[in-house]
Amino acid sequence: MAKIKIGIVGGTGYTGVELLRLLANHPDVELQVITSRSEMGLPVSDLFPNLRDHLSIAFSEPDVSTLKNCDLVFFATPNGIAMKMVPELIEAGVKVIDLAADFRIKDINVWEQWYGMEHACPDYVEQAVYGLPEVNREAIKQARLIANPGCYPTAVQLGFLPLIENKLLNTDFLVADCKSGVSGAGRGANVGTLLCEASESFKAYAVPGHRHLPEISQGLDLFNKSDNSGDVDLTFVPHLVPMIRGIQATLYGKIENSNNFKLSEIQALYEQRYADEPFVDVLPAGSHPETRTVKGSNMCRIAIHQPQDSNTIVVLSVIDNLVKGAAGQAVQNMNIVFNLDEKAGLNIVPLMP
Amino acid sequence: MAKIKIGIVGGTGYTGVELLRLLANHPDVELQVITSRSEMGLPVSDLFPNLRDHLSIAFSEPDVSTLKNCDLVFFATPNGIAMKMVPELIEAGVKVIDLAADFRIKDINVWEQWYGMEHACPDYVEQAVYGLPEVNREAIKQARLIANPGCYPTAVQLGFLPLIENKLLNTDFLVADCKSGVSGAGRGANVGTLLCEASESFKAYAVPGHRHLPEISQGLDLFNKSDNSGDVDLTFVPHLVPMIRGIQATLYGKIENSNNFKLSEIQALYEQRYADEPFVDVLPAGSHPETRTVKGSNMCRIAIHQPQDSNTIVVLSVIDNLVKGAAGQAVQNMNIVFNLDEKAGLNIVPLMP
Amino acid sequence: MAKIKIGIVGGTGYTGVELLRLLANHPDVELQVITSRSEMGLPVSDLFPNLRDHLSIAFSEPDVSTLKNCDLVFFATPNGIAMKMVPELIEAGVKVIDLAADFRIKDINVWEQWYGMEHACPDYVEQAVYGLPEVNREAIKQARLIANPGCYPTAVQLGFLPLIENKLLNTDFLVADCKSGVSGAGRGANVGTLLCEASESFKAYAVPGHRHLPEISQGLDLFNKSDNSGDVDLTFVPHLVPMIRGIQATLYGKIENSNNFKLSEIQALYEQRYADEPFVDVLPAGSHPETRTVKGSNMCRIAIHQPQDSNTIVVLSVIDNLVKGAAGQAVQNMNIVFNLDEKAGLNIVPLMP
Amino acid sequence: MAKIKIGIVGGTGYTGVELLRLLANHPDVELQVITSRSEMGLPVSDLFPNLRDHLSIAFSEPDVSTLKNCDLVFFATPNGIAMKMVPELIEAGVKVIDLAADFRIKDINVWEQWYGMEHACPDYVEQAVYGLPEVNREAIKQARLIANPGCYPTAVQLGFLPLIENKLLNTDFLVADCKSGVSGAGRGANVGTLLCEASESFKAYAVPGHRHLPEISQGLDLFNKSDNSGDVDLTFVPHLVPMIRGIQATLYGKIENSNNFKLSEIQALYEQRYADEPFVDVLPAGSHPETRTVKGSNMCRIAIHQPQDSNTIVVLSVIDNLVKGAAGQAVQNMNIVFNLDEKAGLNIVPLMP
Repeated sequence: MAKIKIGIVGGTGYTGVELLRLLANHPDVELQVITSRSEMGLPVSDLFPNLRDHLSIAFSEPDVSTLKNCDLVFFATPNGIAMKMVPELIEAGVKVIDLAADFRIKDINVWEQWYGMEHACPDYVEQAVYGLPEVNREAIKQARLIANPGCYPTAVQLGFLPLIENKLLNTDFLVADCKSGVSGAGRGANVGTLLCEASESFKAYAVPGHRHLPEISQGLDLFNKSDNSGDVDLTFVPHLVPMIRGIQATLYGKIENSNNFKLSEIQALYEQRYADEPFVDVLPAGSHPETRTVKGSNMCRIAIHQPQDSNTIVVLSVIDNLVKGAAGQAVQNMNIVFNLDEKAGLNIVPLMP
Repeated sequence: MAKIKIGIVGGTGYTGVELLRLLANHPDVELQVITSRSEMGLPVSDLFPNLRDHLSIAFSEPDVSTLKNCDLVFFATPNGIAMKMVPELIEAGVKVIDLAADFRIKDINVWEQWYGMEHACPDYVEQAVYGLPEVNREAIKQARLIANPGCYPTAVQLGFLPLIENKLLNTDFLVADCKSGVSGAGRGANVGTLLCEASESFKAYAVPGHRHLPEISQGLDLFNKSDNSGDVDLTFVPHLVPMIRGIQATLYGKIENSNNFKLSEIQALYEQRYADEPFVDVLPAGSHPETRTVKGSNMCRIAIHQPQDSNTIVVLSVIDNLVKGAAGQAVQNMNIVFNLDEKAGLNIVPLMP
Repeated sequence: MAKIKIGIVGGTGYTGVELLRLLANHPDVELQVITSRSEMGLPVSDLFPNLRDHLSIAFSEPDVSTLKNCDLVFFATPNGIAMKMVPELIEAGVKVIDLAADFRIKDINVWEQWYGMEHACPDYVEQAVYGLPEVNREAIKQARLIANPGCYPTAVQLGFLPLIENKLLNTDFLVADCKSGVSGAGRGANVGTLLCEASESFKAYAVPGHRHLPEISQGLDLFNKSDNSGDVDLTFVPHLVPMIRGIQATLYGKIENSNNFKLSEIQALYEQRYADEPFVDVLPAGSHPETRTVKGSNMCRIAIHQPQDSNTIVVLSVIDNLVKGAAGQAVQNMNIVFNLDEKAGLNIVPLMP
Repeated sequence: MAKIKIGIVGGTGYTGVELLRLLANHPDVELQVITSRSEMGLPVSDLFPNLRDHLSIAFSEPDVSTLKNCDLVFFATPNGIAMKMVPELIEAGVKVIDLAADFRIKDINVWEQWYGMEHACPDYVEQAVYGLPEVNREAIKQARLIANPGCYPTAVQLGFLPLIENKLLNTDFLVADCKSGVSGAGRGANVGTLLCEASESFKAYAVPGHRHLPEISQGLDLFNKSDNSGDVDLTFVPHLVPMIRGIQATLYGKIENSNNFKLSEIQALYEQRYADEPFVDVLPAGSHPETRTVKGSNMCRIAIHQPQDSNTIVVLSVIDNLVKGAAGQAVQNMNIVFNLDEKAGLNIVPLMP
C-alpha cells in the first residue's frame, strides 16, 4: 500500500515534536512537509536532536499549494491559525486534524467569547467531528475535519463518561480537580514556566475560568443527553505540577440515587464501557494510577473509588497530556480516518522509571 | 531571662531536622537534649550537615529522667511513642508538644481504629489541647500537653474555618482535594518515595481513607458547632506532588443560601477573621498562591474564588508541610505556651526561587 | 523464523524493567520466563504498570532446568548471582548476557578486591566477551557468554576510544568527570536516593574509588595496546544528578604532541571511527549534547571540544544509563549474537521533552 | 546606631530577590530605595510574594540623586549598567557593591573582549576591590567600590586557593569541572531554561569559553604570585544541573612534587587556611559535600580527596550560587565595609530537605 502523505503546519512546539516522534516510527505514513515560518530551512533534528537519525526533513514555508498534495494535514499551531487555512485544504480533498481549539466548540458565540477572536469559518465548525474516539469513532471514520480534543477535556470526559451517560450522577455539583505537567503550557519562553519558577512548587491557575471548561461542559452535556447546556454543573480547577508530562483528573460527584449504588457495579460498568477500547485501561478496584505509567503512551488509565462507603464517587483518570491529550490522539484519529489498525504507531511501552 | 530548656524525642526524621533548624536560631531557647536510640552518640550535624556550625549537640539515649530537666519536650516520633512517655513527663511538670498523632483525636475509639493500636493514656487525650493557634490560642496558653496538628488538617481547617463557623456552606458535600510534597512521607527508606519513583509523576493515594480525615472532620464539626459528628460530610483525597516541600489544599463547597452570596463579602470575612493572625495571609481576591511562597516559613496563604460566578466557592490554601504543617506550628505553640513573641524564631523569609 | 526464546533472571530492578520494555516490542524474541524469588507469582505488570497490555508473564521461581529451555538468558541480578548459575547454563548450550559485573574484569584478583567476594567461576571470566559492540563486535558474534558493560564504562570508553587507540593523548593524566541520574543507584529502598534527599542537590560520591574504575582502566589499556595495566592514568569521579535517567561523561586530556593538533582532524577521526556504528552519534563540532536527547534510546552522542584553542581536549559523551548503559546494550548484544538486525527492537525515538 | 541606608539598582532578577531576602532580616540596615525601570511603582512583594509581610517598599525609577542619599548601593543589574552610574555615586561618597561583572577584570582589554562592549570607566576598575573576603578582607574594609565575584569563580577560587598559594600544584594542567543549578541563568524568559527543557537532563555549555574563565584565571594567577597571566593553565567547563540552586566545582590537579604529598597534610593546610573564615567549612577528610547543605546560606563547604593514592588531588567545593555566589557574599562585603559583625544577617541554617 502506498504510504499516506502527511503534512504538519506548525511543529516547533511540544505537540509538534511529539507528533514527529510518533510519525517517525509509524509504518503507514510518510511525512511530506512540515512548515514553520520562524524555523524555515532548519532541519527538524537541529531543533529537536532526539529526531537525529529518525527524520531528515526540514521546516519549510507554510504554503497551501504544497500542503494540498498531502492526504492529511495536522495543525499543531496556536489557536486561530488553522481556521484560516482549513477551508481551502478541505475543499481540495485533504483531510485535516486540528490539534488546536479552532473547531472544538460548536457554539460560535461561546468560542468567540473564550478565545477572544472572531471565527473565520463557522460553517466548518459545524461539520467538524470532535475527535474523541471513545465517543465518536463512527463519525471520525467519515470525517473530513477533526477537532482533536484538549488535554484536560480528554482526561475529564473519559473519566466521567460511563457515569453520566448512565445518568448515575447528580449533575448539580461535579468537581474536576485537574493537575497537569508543565509541558501543557507549551514551549514558549515565559517566566512562569522557567524551571526556577515552576519546579519545587505547586499552584492552581485560571480558577475564575479556563478555556477547557466550555469544551468539557459541551461534552458532558452531550453524554447527559440534556437539551439545555449547563445542565451539568461542573467546577473545573486546573493546577500546575512540577513535572514535564502527565495529567491527572480527580473527579468528584454524588451518586443520584444512592440506594442503588454499589461500587462493584460501577467498576463493572466502566470495564464494560471500555472493554473494546485500545487506549482506555480501567484499573482494578482500589487502584491509584500514576501519571508516569502512561508517559510517552496513548493510554488513559482510570480507577474508581467510593471513599468511606459514602455516596460520593471519586474517579482518577491519568493521561500523558502530549500523547492521549494531543499528538497521540491525533494519530489515533488519523488511523481511524484511514482505516488503519487503530494502534499503528502507538504501540508504545511507557518509559519507567 | 533564662533560656527555656528544650528536649526533643526522636529528631532523625524530617520534622525533627526542621525543628532543629528553627530552634537553632530561636533567641529564647536552649536545646538541652535530643534523643534517638538508633543514632545515639552521633552529633546531629553529622546526620544533617546543614546544622554544622549551628548545633553541637549529639543524639543521646531516650531517658525520661534527663528529659524531666527540660521545660518543654517535643516529640518528633512515629505515632504511638509519645503516649508511652507523656504521662510521666507531664506529672513532672514538663510541658509537652507532640508532633505525632497520639493526642489529636478526642474519640479514643476512632483513634484506635485509624491508628491500629490501643491508646496508652486516654486520660491525657482528654486534657490535651489541639494546637491550632488560630482556633485555640487561649487554651494553648494554659496547656500542659499540646497535640500539634497534622499537615493536611492545618491547611484544610484554616481554609474552611471562616466559611463553616459562619454557617455559609452546605456541609452535605465538601471536597478537600489536597496535594503534598514528598517530605510528608518522611525520611524512611521506601521504594515509593525514591526519586526515581516519585519524581516526574503524580498520583492520588489513600483515597479509601487517610488518617487525617477523622482529624479534619473533628475540627470542621467543632467549627460548625454541630452536636453530631459527621454533620460535615467531607471527601478528602490526598495526592503526592513531585517536590520536596509544600501542601496545597483546594477546597470546594456550595454556598448554603446562594442569594446572599457575594465573593467580596466572603473575601472581607476571611480578611477580618485572620487580621490579627501572624501566620495566616489572606491574598487579594483572584490570587493563586504558590506553595513555594511559603517554603521554609510558618505562613499559610489563602485565596478565595467563585468560578464562573456560580454558587460554588473554591478556597486555595498553601503551607509548608514541615513548618506550619509540623515543626513551625510546634514552635508557634511553644511561643504561646511560654508567653513569648509568637513570631520568635519564626520570622523567616521564604526561599525563592 | 521461530522466535528466540528468552529468559530473564532477576528483573525487579530498573535494568530489569527496562529490558522488559525493550523486549516487549522486539519483533524476533519471545519472553519465556522471568524469575524473582521475592516476587514469585506476581504478574510483571502488577509491579510495573507501564507493562499492562504489553506483557502477561508472571515472575517465577529461579530454576535452572526451566532456564535451560531458553536460547538466551539475561541476568539482571545483583553482582555475584550470575556467576553461580552461568556455568550450568553455558554447558547446556544457552547463551548468557550478564548485565551485572561478574564477568567484566579479566584479572580475578582485581575483581575480587573491588567486589569483595570470591569469584565462583574464574574460567568463565576468561571466555566471556566484553560486550561493547563498537570494540568487540566480531567476538560478540561468537560469544557464549557476554559481560555487558557498566553504564559509566560505556560512556567513558566510547568517548576516549578514538583518541587513545590512535595514541593521541598523553595518558599520564586523564580525567573522567561523570554525572549520572539516580536510576543508576537502582530500585533498592535507600535513604540516600529518596526524592527528598537526592532532588534539588548535587554531589560527587565514591571519589576514593568506584568499581567502574578498574573496568574503565582495563578498557583504556586495551585501546592503548599497552602491556602494563595502569599505563593509562585515569582519575574517575562520579556524581549524582537530580534526575532519573542519563549519564554525561566529561573527559579531559592533553594532546600528546600538540604541534600536530587540529580539532577538525580529531572531529573527522571520530566521525570516521563511528561512521558505521548504529548507536554512536558524533555531533557537529561545537555541540553540547544533552542527556535528554538519548532518553529511552540506545544512542550515545559525542561532541569534541578544544577550549580556548589550548592543547587540552574535552570530550562530551552522553547515554541513557538504563539503555546504552545497560538493557539496550544487552539487547544490541543479543541482536549481534543471533545475527539479527542490530537495531531490532532498538529503533526508538527518545522522548522529548 | 543609625541604620545603614541601602539602595538597590535592579532587583527584579534572582540575585535581586535574594538580596532582598537577606536584607529584610538584617539588623543593621534599612532599605531606602530599589529601582527598576520595568516594574516602577510595583510593590516588591507583588513581584515576589515570599516578601509579603517582610518588605513594604515599591520599585521606583532609577535616579542617581535619590541613590546618593544612601550609604551603600548594590547593583543587581545586567553587565554594563553599573559602570555608567558608579562614578557619580562614588564621587558623592556612596559605597558601591556591583554584583555584575563590570569591575571584576583588571585588564580592560580582556574585559572588553569577553563582554563585548567598551568599558565606560576604566579608572574605576583600577580602584575596585575584588570582593572575595577570604583573600581581600583588608582591602575590602577600605574599599569604595567592590566588584562582587561571580558564582563559579567563588567556588573555584576557594577550592584551589590553599594549594596554589602554597605552590603545591603543577599549574600546567588544572581542570575545573563545574556544575550549576538553573538559577545561575537568571530570571529571563528563555526557552533553554524552561522546566520542560532543563529538568530531567544534564549538559555542558560554553565549553569553548565562558566569561568566568578570565575572572578565575586572574584570581589563580594572583594566588600563584606569577607575573605572567596564563601561567596557570586552567580548563573550565560549566554544566547545567536540573535543580534551582547550588554550584559544585570538582577540581583536579597534579601535585607538583609528589614525593612530599600526604593527603593529611593538605587537609591540615586547608583547615588552617580557613580556620578563621566564617563562611568556609572544610569538611573531614573523605567527605562528599552536597549542594543542598548550603542551600539558602552563605557557606562554602570544601572536601579534599586523593583518589587511589595517586598524585592527583581532587577538591570538591560547593556553594549556593545565589548566596555565597552572589547576594550573600555581597552582604558579607557590606558587613566588612561597615565594620559590622561579618555574619550579621547571614546566620542562616540551610533548608534541608
